[in-house]
Amino acid sequence: MDKIPILKMGPFLLVTIQVDLYDRLALNLESDLIQMVNKMSSKGVLIDISAVNIVDSFMGRILGNIASMSKILDAQTVVVGMQPAVAITLVELGLPLTGVRTALNVEKGMELLQSMISREDSAREEENADDDNITI
Amino acid sequence: MDKIPILKMGPFLLVTIQVDLYDRLALNLESDLIQMVNKMSSKGVLIDISAVNIVDSFMGRILGNIASMSKILDAQTVVVGMQPAVAITLVELGLPLTGVRTALNVEKGMELLQSMISREDSAREEENADDDNITI
Repeated sequence: MDKIPILKMGPFLLVTIQVDLYDRLALNLESDLIQMVNKMSSKGVLIDISAVNIVDSFMGRILGNIASMSKILDAQTVVVGMQPAVAITLVELGLPLTGVRTALNVEKGMELLQSMISREDSAREEENADDDNITI
Repeated sequence: MDKIPILKMGPFLLVTIQVDLYDRLALNLESDLIQMVNKMSSKGVLIDISAVNIVDSFMGRILGNIASMSKILDAQTVVVGMQPAVAITLVELGLPLTGVRTALNVEKGMELLQSMISREDSAREEENADDDNITI
């Protein structure tokens, strides 16, 4: 397998990672995801890692990369379904998932994405309103 | 890997098949799915096979089994994301996916499930109304 399928669900993209991410697979996932975000004008990316037993520094960096790249294209990234053992190992090894938001499961991840997006929209509207005031 | 993750999305369950289904994995998937349908009172199961390059008679039977088992528990099954080449091969080999409904992608599959469920509900209501008439 050299590709992980990306599912479009309304304004979001959903990826389920079921196998160990080796170099080429991870790079393919990164580029496929970013291209899909661009093509579908997606507002959020959900990455389900409930089937992943080990998250090492490589996988942590890949997740961080995806989050940073998506952010530049104005999409939020949420990692969902992390196993408790994985969370314990991450903290014990001192591996922070920098810049990556997490949620318990896909449903809660979607709620989080929705609230993040609506918060951003309202912040933008306020900015626009301020700009209008200045021009007046 | 001996388990395929099952994601709960509202009233539906979503499974993405990314690897070849060998015996034990397929049996695990069947039993896990049926238990999840029961536990979550799910009304529908979506099986994404967009990453599957080959659907043989074994996989066809597994998909058919899942559909039949779910049906007994009052849940509909829709297989989504089949690659065009897979559809061609299925027909050329004379392998019909008996009892399995299909849709182009996850979004269309969800729409199909929603329409199937609402149609069933209204049929049930009509039956109930008929029963009421008889008792009067």
